[in-house]
Amino acid sequence: MDAPGRRTITGFSNPTVKALRALRDKKHRQRDGRFLAEGLRLLTDARESGILPQMLVMAEGREQHALLDALEADVLASGGEVIETSPDILAKITGKDNPQAVAGVFQQMATDLASIDRGSAEIWLVAQALRDPGNLGTMLRTGDAVGAGGLILIDDCADPFSVEAVRASMGAIFTQAIAQARWDEFLPWLRSGPGQLVAASLRDAVPYRGAPYSAPCFILIGNESRGLPEEYEAACDLRVTMPMRGRADSLNAAIAAAVLAYEVLDSLG
Amino acid sequence: MDAPGRRTITGFSNPTVKALRALRDKKHRQRDGRFLAEGLRLLTDARESGILPQMLVMAEGREQHALLDALEADVLASGGEVIETSPDILAKITGKDNPQAVAGVFQQMATDLASIDRGSAEIWLVAQALRDPGNLGTMLRTGDAVGAGGLILIDDCADPFSVEAVRASMGAIFTQAIAQARWDEFLPWLRSGPGQLVAASLRDAVPYRGAPYSAPCFILIGNESRGLPEEYEAACDLRVTMPMRGRADSLNAAIAAAVLAYEVLDSLG
Repeated sequence: MDAPGRRTITGFSNPTVKALRALRDKKHRQRDGRFLAEGLRLLTDARESGILPQMLVMAEGREQHALLDALEADVLASGGEVIETSPDILAKITGKDNPQAVAGVFQQMATDLASIDRGSAEIWLVAQALRDPGNLGTMLRTGDAVGAGGLILIDDCADPFSVEAVRASMGAIFTQAIAQARWDEFLPWLRSGPGQLVAASLRDAVPYRGAPYSAPCFILIGNESRGLPEEYEAACDLRVTMPMRGRADSLNAAIAAAVLAYEVLDSLG
Repeated sequence: MDAPGRRTITGFSNPTVKALRALRDKKHRQRDGRFLAEGLRLLTDARESGILPQMLVMAEGREQHALLDALEADVLASGGEVIETSPDILAKITGKDNPQAVAGVFQQMATDLASIDRGSAEIWLVAQALRDPGNLGTMLRTGDAVGAGGLILIDDCADPFSVEAVRASMGAIFTQAIAQARWDEFLPWLRSGPGQLVAASLRDAVPYRGAPYSAPCFILIGNESRGLPEEYEAACDLRVTMPMRGRADSLNAAIAAAVLAYEVLDSLG
């Protein structure tokens, strides 16, 4: 018999396996309110940020690791569950051919605007209708690097709790605040306190280098193909443009966010 | 009967369908020497850069478009082939559920170091063991934006002619020079002429802002998980570091390349 909090799962058709596998699907994930994160590095990042998985799923035959032992002990101590299973079943859960030896199931964080404490950071990233989960995760990672407070997702964006976004965030999913809101909720919220809204734009814009940024600075990036709606740009306090020396007239969304965020960081620093 | 240069393909088992479908596989692509690019926008970018597909594959029932008519005429005039097929077969070729209505088959460009004219641009991007084709394509796109001459791929990188890299490049695959070389070919080549080699690094580095960049500036970015080998960093003329204010100690590779490239652009401008 397994010790308290521990279980071994040997069958593909086990209901827990099915439930975890379903977490790769956005609808299930939203109903369930949990998400998956893979790999000891990511799980250790979470732990060091004070966030533990409700459930730890480990492959049999994994290598011993002190950080994994520590994680296991913490999960059990916090009342979580530790599941041992085969590498094949873990692969089925994560959807990766060569999964890492461990995955965690986490409670999704609150994503309402009330969870954003604008005074806690000088930079905030804001994405509008961002469709690519990799771009979303990369923006979280960049936000962490520039000391941003978090990422606010406007209108219909990719799911920040998707496996791809979590992976691309490289742990920043656990350190950056995340909010999801419609534009007509976001704008009144923004205007209810201090905050400069800056858009990367081609219309009526000043050069991004040396522009008059002020904290807290909200950097607004538009959809990958359509950019920002004109009325969203018009509502910004500052529109800045980056040099485009080639044939194309735009950068990848996560790239634009990063180039601008590093400029703002230097300017406010 | 079809007009000269035109063919209609109705069967999934047609040998041309099989050959084009195989272009999604790296080994086949390398043997064949061609690659696929999808969508009217990408094909028009190519055409405006003076590059035509050998073969144009169009879905029946597509919408009329003057740019597509122009492309079709140019392909036929240059001795290329125009193939009409069903949306289902086009989907099979491109591997996308909702393919764009048109795809082109192009000759791969030369990728030896001799194809790099270092005097033609002030910035060159160099990637070492870059594994993600999306990052590679994004670096091409960023290179285009900063007016770089091209991208040099060191050691075992993702294939620049993969569908993912071509797509992420947003047309820059047709405007940026591309070279592939081992480090011990690249370094002697670099030292045989003018050129400053700059690495994003944590070791023995100066702040990236205001560092003494000089043209032609070669910006070297390392592998996504391991970064650059120490001896590669040691061979650089300049090591620069970007602020990291959060938990993580690195940026996404394409992000690091872009932040650095925009700094170099400003510095040299």
